[in-house]
Amino acid sequence: MPSDQNLDALTRRLKDFAEARQWSRFHTPRNLAMALGGEVGELLAELQWLSEDEAVELVRAGPHRERVVDEVADVATYLLRFCDVLDIDLVQAVARRIEQNEQRLPVQHVTGRAVRTRELQDGSALADRGPLPTS
Amino acid sequence: MPSDQNLDALTRRLKDFAEARQWSRFHTPRNLAMALGGEVGELLAELQWLSEDEAVELVRAGPHRERVVDEVADVATYLLRFCDVLDIDLVQAVARRIEQNEQRLPVQHVTGRAVRTRELQDGSALADRGPLPTS
Amino acid sequence: MPSDQNLDALTRRLKDFAEARQWSRFHTPRNLAMALGGEVGELLAELQWLSEDEAVELVRAGPHRERVVDEVADVATYLLRFCDVLDIDLVQAVARRIEQNEQRLPVQHVTGRAVRTRELQDGSALADRGPLPTS
Amino acid sequence: MPSDQNLDALTRRLKDFAEARQWSRFHTPRNLAMALGGEVGELLAELQWLSEDEAVELVRAGPHRERVVDEVADVATYLLRFCDVLDIDLVQAVARRIEQNEQRLPVQHVTGRAVRTRELQDGSALADRGPLPTS
Repeated sequence: MPSDQNLDALTRRLKDFAEARQWSRFHTPRNLAMALGGEVGELLAELQWLSEDEAVELVRAGPHRERVVDEVADVATYLLRFCDVLDIDLVQAVARRIEQNEQRLPVQHVTGRAVRTRELQDGSALADRGPLPTS
Repeated sequence: MPSDQNLDALTRRLKDFAEARQWSRFHTPRNLAMALGGEVGELLAELQWLSEDEAVELVRAGPHRERVVDEVADVATYLLRFCDVLDIDLVQAVARRIEQNEQRLPVQHVTGRAVRTRELQDGSALADRGPLPTS
Repeated sequence: MPSDQNLDALTRRLKDFAEARQWSRFHTPRNLAMALGGEVGELLAELQWLSEDEAVELVRAGPHRERVVDEVADVATYLLRFCDVLDIDLVQAVARRIEQNEQRLPVQHVTGRAVRTRELQDGSALADRGPLPTS
Repeated sequence: MPSDQNLDALTRRLKDFAEARQWSRFHTPRNLAMALGGEVGELLAELQWLSEDEAVELVRAGPHRERVVDEVADVATYLLRFCDVLDIDLVQAVARRIEQNEQRLPVQHVTGRAVRTRELQDGSALADRGPLPTS
């Protein structure tokens, strides 16, 4: 349940939409996570054969943009349903995560270097990647 | 760019976070879609061996809930970055999608039946699934 | 159950591995599909911040190659378990799919153009993409 | 490049298929990983609204089985292309992974307990999960 008026309203509409169709019983945490995986797969599929430049160019306007926006909406839909069902405040969760990451990823240590969250967790982030994706 | 004050603020913080670390050049549409896929994978992994009941029970509180909330935050983070980079209004995209789905999925046709978006697109939704997941 | 001696042997070893640990009851179709999603997410995460050139270069040798090979093995592991549990002959399934695709994607129509399977299914493949990813 | 006669033959056919259509240039490591993510998403979508019992029942025969087998074939296709492009021996990779896991997951420590690979990596596997999914 996001602490946000517009998100709250969307979350409520998505819940009403599901309830009006008697779909609530399908919307279990695991099912919604799978549906989220399915929609992210569709988003990946929209971008899979494009160069970086084509991706930016194509998604600027036209039918390709429409498809990408729709996939983004589908991802968000299942994410909001997941949060609603498990009573997770999405905005607060992200805000908390930013604070954690500000601690774990101090600017002076990671500037210009791509770092994966898992590497941070096991302490390998600042060691074995070398100068690789440094700016 | 979501049309929502709190989401706007989060989107801005996530952008500032990336820019302070000179990570903006990594945040291309394709890279962010891949990162989104990685984070949804982590969410799936949290739920993969659980029964439906265990999933609900475990995510109610405790360390398992913490991990799920963190994964949800990571998914949302890359989704918001993706929208920011491509100038997609997430709230508006979801609202538009709900309206489309209200047209395509009229209550009287789909009540109690699980339906996949793709089936709707190719017209098979209301035909070949039979009475399967009917309530 | 793949029709292939080495794959058969691997499938058998993976089954024995699971059974020795009393994990068979976790290896349901849905759980294994979720685990597959989790492992593909890890593979995506290995490649998410790299340029195309870096991806090829980094995966040539060294620790990055080790990680990618391990993720590939994890993906294959859950795919083989999934096929075993549902009695799907993986080699035959791929062979059949190639034959289908040879029919659906005749060389003279698609040469040099990226095409998505879904577009083929709904007939839009040869129409709306335009000359986009043409060679 | 799998060390397996049938897999070798499939890998070769998939390569020939791509080359005949001048698709090799699309088959970069990152693109293929994204395509893999897309196909796993489609597999998840086939199972997302089903109960465990329905999943087993529906995939036993009929049109639902056809769709699942096709998705499995698509996942395998991109996995084999990925291995071919990066010269990874898939059978050997899985065999090596089984040996690693036999070391890391001794029968006496993990019997009947669901364990995630990441937990093994960071040492938390045998600690914080508690007796949860114990048989």
